[in-house]
Amino acid sequence: MTEFSENIAALQPSATIAVSSRAKQLRAEGRDIIDLCVGEPDFPTPRFIADAGVEAIRAGHTRYTPAPGIPELRAAIAADLQRLSPGAGDIEAHGIVVSAGAKQALFNVCFSLFGPGDRVLIPVPYWTSYPAIVELTRAEPVLVDGDAERSFKVTVDALDRAAAGGAKGLLLNSPGNPSGAVYTKDELEEIARWAADRGIWLISDEIYRRIYFEGDLAPGILDLPGELLERAVLIDGASKAFAMTGWRIGFSYSAKALAAKVSALQSQTTTHAPTPSQHAALAAYRADPAQLDECRAMQQSFNVRKQLLTQLFREKLPDVEFVDPAGAFYLWIATGGLANAGENSVEVCERILQSTGVALVPGTAFGDDRYLRLSFAASEDTLRDAVNRLATGL
Amino acid sequence: MTEFSENIAALQPSATIAVSSRAKQLRAEGRDIIDLCVGEPDFPTPRFIADAGVEAIRAGHTRYTPAPGIPELRAAIAADLQRLSPGAGDIEAHGIVVSAGAKQALFNVCFSLFGPGDRVLIPVPYWTSYPAIVELTRAEPVLVDGDAERSFKVTVDALDRAAAGGAKGLLLNSPGNPSGAVYTKDELEEIARWAADRGIWLISDEIYRRIYFEGDLAPGILDLPGELLERAVLIDGASKAFAMTGWRIGFSYSAKALAAKVSALQSQTTTHAPTPSQHAALAAYRADPAQLDECRAMQQSFNVRKQLLTQLFREKLPDVEFVDPAGAFYLWIATGGLANAGENSVEVCERILQSTGVALVPGTAFGDDRYLRLSFAASEDTLRDAVNRLATGL
Repeated sequence: MTEFSENIAALQPSATIAVSSRAKQLRAEGRDIIDLCVGEPDFPTPRFIADAGVEAIRAGHTRYTPAPGIPELRAAIAADLQRLSPGAGDIEAHGIVVSAGAKQALFNVCFSLFGPGDRVLIPVPYWTSYPAIVELTRAEPVLVDGDAERSFKVTVDALDRAAAGGAKGLLLNSPGNPSGAVYTKDELEEIARWAADRGIWLISDEIYRRIYFEGDLAPGILDLPGELLERAVLIDGASKAFAMTGWRIGFSYSAKALAAKVSALQSQTTTHAPTPSQHAALAAYRADPAQLDECRAMQQSFNVRKQLLTQLFREKLPDVEFVDPAGAFYLWIATGGLANAGENSVEVCERILQSTGVALVPGTAFGDDRYLRLSFAASEDTLRDAVNRLATGL
Repeated sequence: MTEFSENIAALQPSATIAVSSRAKQLRAEGRDIIDLCVGEPDFPTPRFIADAGVEAIRAGHTRYTPAPGIPELRAAIAADLQRLSPGAGDIEAHGIVVSAGAKQALFNVCFSLFGPGDRVLIPVPYWTSYPAIVELTRAEPVLVDGDAERSFKVTVDALDRAAAGGAKGLLLNSPGNPSGAVYTKDELEEIARWAADRGIWLISDEIYRRIYFEGDLAPGILDLPGELLERAVLIDGASKAFAMTGWRIGFSYSAKALAAKVSALQSQTTTHAPTPSQHAALAAYRADPAQLDECRAMQQSFNVRKQLLTQLFREKLPDVEFVDPAGAFYLWIATGGLANAGENSVEVCERILQSTGVALVPGTAFGDDRYLRLSFAASEDTLRDAVNRLATGL
């Protein structure tokens, strides 16, 4: 394949998508498949948000917008961030760049900050696209094992050891996909201070911040003292919080100088996030209290499912260990109680899919072959059915 | 700015956007501004397409899709390409990757093919993002002067001289932005044969193919013998043909091996093109004969404007030379009859904007400082007003 650029030498299609494709194929062949691979809410986009998208189309908001997004949306996102972190200093709309999904925001920021010769720290387990994105910038991903005793959250000691060979950045994800782990404010502050002291860019992916089971809102970097955030970037978006995955709306929030670079990069790659979607997201970020309650109910339903699912696992699969998630909508399951001798995580998932019809994602997609990921973005009945199948079929 | 990655060392925000911003600023200050900078149709998205977008949202088509696009859209685009080039071999949906705009398709393809050490030929004048995109891949853009006697179309001789130092690719744009030049089928074939003989990738950006003034449809690479196209890639999209700029729908069509790489890259950067937009575009590419007629009328209105505009220029600004456009919606105007001694194209545009309120784009944004670009994606009255202002104000 020397035809292709060395830019994509390490590139693989997203691993989660590969398993999902296999499940779809079996379903197409008539098998009764429960797909617990997917990384998106199973709810429709709330009506008031969808209505805003429809109205935008009807009003002719179907033309080019400024590269970083329409000013109203950037302002509404900034105001919403300020509402969520009232103690933060002035959150400026100039620092917001709206992108076609949080993944693009992450790509834009990483491509603008990291390059050949740079090392970027990635705690394990990681969201499957992190190492791929760092490799696309041609920096080197440096994997840092999370602490199994702390839901795989990474310690400053582990970061420090990994940074001994140099580090320009750290990609943090809390609430975490796939672990469901959530860093406390103190833990975040300790890491942010460690990074700030060393001039390391802290990229904080908080896309699951509103899907949190131990309070209203998971701690985020904007809750930290401003002096720790000179080289910090927030990544977030509408996909998970507002069931808007297909609309492709994410954003980065950073110092203005970096935001200008990110916006310039985007103007040369995708121009801007889709216009009707920007107007739909505007409704989400400007939601009134009743609309916020509607979204909150949706976000909290994942807590109900998490309670049900973990209880079912403890009852029916008592030998199977998992991380009790504090946020997001994934169960990170040790293969120990499920694997036959010598099976890797791909083989375990393939066997489970064949014998029970339940589709899960092998942990190797997230950097840890000893685990599997189960998405509980599914109805309670579906989750009951899935656990029953696993308990009886294995 | 050593903070930032060398990936973006050469990056500038899109130059056309900078002038447009200045025009908007003057307008905000109360000035009566005619903005002829914009690169998008002044028509609303046709109703049947907008309706399809609305119906998609109402039907809940707001979730993730496969990275290369929904199968129906890829199939509809393939069928439409086959309809437009009936002599082409089987056009396969597997070769289509739907992107968030033709610009992303171009970025994806270039990033997958070109990299450090590669040289990529770009005829001058060029669309402003071409050199920027090649630089983002870290290949070297090699500018090749078009032939002023042939509406700035590039000759094989000029390409041959430029390729003497090596070349991995050639970015061709017909109908061309900003020149309005259109390569004949024979010219395209000569260039395609030259590229095929040398193993050079031919990237053919045909986004303006349906906006053509000398027949129904500008010649495209799919009209050429298939054996010339092993290393050819078509870039196209819905933005200009269907007045869908803000929806962000473009695509690449290539050999399947490259399409798989492009799809994998996209799965790690933006996931997929926006879902409601994909469904809207599906209506466009599946248009029935009456709907096609409606789109055709819109596309042909640019011909009426072109006739009017060139006639007005010849009458009222007889000393001003321009390229008579055969397609797209731009007039490429020599500054000779407009500039004061020593003025560069930016200074000419700034003076014209100040003294007449007409906003044009300096040719330096397209690689030729001796020219200006005027977009005639504007009503006939607006064009009359603009030419009157230029004729009396200068």
